[in-house]
Amino acid sequence: MGIDPALLQRRLDALYAIGAEPDGGAYRPLYGAAWAAAGDLVERWLKDAGLETRRDAVGNIWGRVGGSGKSIVTGSHIDTVRHGGRLDGALGIVAGLTAVQALLKDKGKPKRPLEVVAICEEEGSRFATNFWGSRAIIGAIDTVDAEIAAAMRERGLDPARIATAARDDIDTFVELHIEQGAVLESAGTPLAVVSAIVGTAHLEVTVTGRPDHAGTTPMDLRLDALAGAAAMVQAIESIAKSLGKPAVATVGKLSVEPDQINVVPGKVVFTIDLRHSDLGGRRALEERIRSLCTTISQERRLDLAIRTLQEKPPVAMHPEVRALLARAATECGVQATEIVSGAGHDAQILAARCKVGMLFVPSIGGRSHCPEEATSPEHLLLGTSVLARTLELLAY
Amino acid sequence: MGIDPALLQRRLDALYAIGAEPDGGAYRPLYGAAWAAAGDLVERWLKDAGLETRRDAVGNIWGRVGGSGKSIVTGSHIDTVRHGGRLDGALGIVAGLTAVQALLKDKGKPKRPLEVVAICEEEGSRFATNFWGSRAIIGAIDTVDAEIAAAMRERGLDPARIATAARDDIDTFVELHIEQGAVLESAGTPLAVVSAIVGTAHLEVTVTGRPDHAGTTPMDLRLDALAGAAAMVQAIESIAKSLGKPAVATVGKLSVEPDQINVVPGKVVFTIDLRHSDLGGRRALEERIRSLCTTISQERRLDLAIRTLQEKPPVAMHPEVRALLARAATECGVQATEIVSGAGHDAQILAARCKVGMLFVPSIGGRSHCPEEATSPEHLLLGTSVLARTLELLAY
Repeated sequence: MGIDPALLQRRLDALYAIGAEPDGGAYRPLYGAAWAAAGDLVERWLKDAGLETRRDAVGNIWGRVGGSGKSIVTGSHIDTVRHGGRLDGALGIVAGLTAVQALLKDKGKPKRPLEVVAICEEEGSRFATNFWGSRAIIGAIDTVDAEIAAAMRERGLDPARIATAARDDIDTFVELHIEQGAVLESAGTPLAVVSAIVGTAHLEVTVTGRPDHAGTTPMDLRLDALAGAAAMVQAIESIAKSLGKPAVATVGKLSVEPDQINVVPGKVVFTIDLRHSDLGGRRALEERIRSLCTTISQERRLDLAIRTLQEKPPVAMHPEVRALLARAATECGVQATEIVSGAGHDAQILAARCKVGMLFVPSIGGRSHCPEEATSPEHLLLGTSVLARTLELLAY
Repeated sequence: MGIDPALLQRRLDALYAIGAEPDGGAYRPLYGAAWAAAGDLVERWLKDAGLETRRDAVGNIWGRVGGSGKSIVTGSHIDTVRHGGRLDGALGIVAGLTAVQALLKDKGKPKRPLEVVAICEEEGSRFATNFWGSRAIIGAIDTVDAEIAAAMRERGLDPARIATAARDDIDTFVELHIEQGAVLESAGTPLAVVSAIVGTAHLEVTVTGRPDHAGTTPMDLRLDALAGAAAMVQAIESIAKSLGKPAVATVGKLSVEPDQINVVPGKVVFTIDLRHSDLGGRRALEERIRSLCTTISQERRLDLAIRTLQEKPPVAMHPEVRALLARAATECGVQATEIVSGAGHDAQILAARCKVGMLFVPSIGGRSHCPEEATSPEHLLLGTSVLARTLELLAY
């Protein structure tokens, strides 16, 4: 199929230029000026490609062409994090549009409706609204916060109509995305089919000892909260390693009280981010971590409190879509591996209403959410070609 | 000798009431209003006890009585930390005054000049000027910062005359202080003679890894600065424990970058406070810690930088004064143990110009620098009695 690699790059460049920040990267927060300009550009591209466009009540932009029955949809989100890169979200929109355009040229109108969507928000880029666009599509937004409602009105969107963005006529959603990690690159794999998006639990651990004078308190009379927390950080890493992939556990935040050079720490608060593709695996990880932290706190006569901040179940990609993506990859000449996505994506939300599947291309150096975010031109072309072939298998 | 325990308590209560903070404890920062009021009260007590008083150019208050030759001096500092307790500094002044008063009553005028000093500052209570009073006494202050000079002028002190506070006519300085730790209490010992004040080194350790997405980066592809730092915190504790008393090592401050729940830490900066009574012991502790941190960083492919922030050598108390203090204790009916002071004291500065010695009484629960700071009345009386007998042995 004739995917034009130069067109792909030009469109990625054009989107990346919108919301460019003086100190690097682009920032297109939900309902902001850069977000609106990017949406206008995508809508024009969709129209120029011969798709019928519309905007729904939440601000998602849809382009649709021919056919009957439930829709085959591709796309991604148009918002970005601060100092965001060139590909996160943008690639899924640009590749989807370019693939559909190539299909229309080579194969004509599809049998089933084929749609490209620019989802308004996935990143929590402006408000704490992660998956705002896809949640509207599955009809999961009941109320709109006043601040968000005001931002919607500024863009001519009526928050009272948000329920009308819900769709029940989507058959399959497929998305091309960058991996945002270094697994594909380090394995030398050009393409992967996502098997599942991990479940995440966020815990907050508080370790309480006793603040003491660093000079006058011998080692054996201390109740050092930081020494205890350090033993826990070590144990958390060991447990995740010993459970093996795809289990990951990260202590990302840690603070010490009183945080003085000559005082034995009396209190430490830290967070744990736990992920696994399988709910049982995630729970086993959490149980072993809770158990070992308890043992360490008891041995050291420290108080321990563990609080769950957030819990999201893992979401499996649909087996039929996974098989189709693998077939399309083989037909394009590559053997795609399977990968578990450690990051969240709109597909995990849309899975509540339709069949979903995702393709990953490698991130150079594993970098993402930063100006260095990149994928080689060959991998971008390969990913777009496999996406196009998948859409052909689904819609023609 | 007739030490009046009720007088001791009343004077401690009176000093503690000056600078009382609404949320507990007292605060008497250098050259502040509470500091000045406390000084006025001490000066009145000294006069009432029959001592001739004077204030030197830095703000130390001296009370002196009779004799010829070099002086025997006792006392402590009058400033406090924020939320300071009832005894730190105050005890040395009140016990010294009460002991001298009892000696004058029982034994008459001493052969040698006997002096009680309220040292203006030891804590760094207002400016970063630790040991300000004792440094002036040994003539070690060359320049006075403009902000401190302004504070001095507010109290009628002329910063240009600070060199006149220097003394070269002190024979011996002895001080009674609370331990500020739990060693005496846990050993059931009512009194200790200080053998040395520890040497301290402050190090700052920077561990640099790579910030990565907590979901998309498998455990084996991480360069987690916090996991590395946690291994180092563990190792530092183990090394200090294995070297045995009086070695102590404390990681008191620690900060994480970017400190986000879903990002693998890219950088951690922490401090190490190292103390030992013996310079060789302190250096051995530091060398083993540096070596093990280097090994850990190499194993984990992390960058490591260690910077020395401060280095103070240990100071031995004078053997003659130690022997006299031990003799006085025996004569008062107790067998004093020897202890290494883990905290700094004016004696370590004054040791440059005269013989020095210190007595410690137990801190209940090891607490200090807080409103809970306390010593039992019997231990306060015992400490003051042994101090009085020591001053008698030195000055009569």
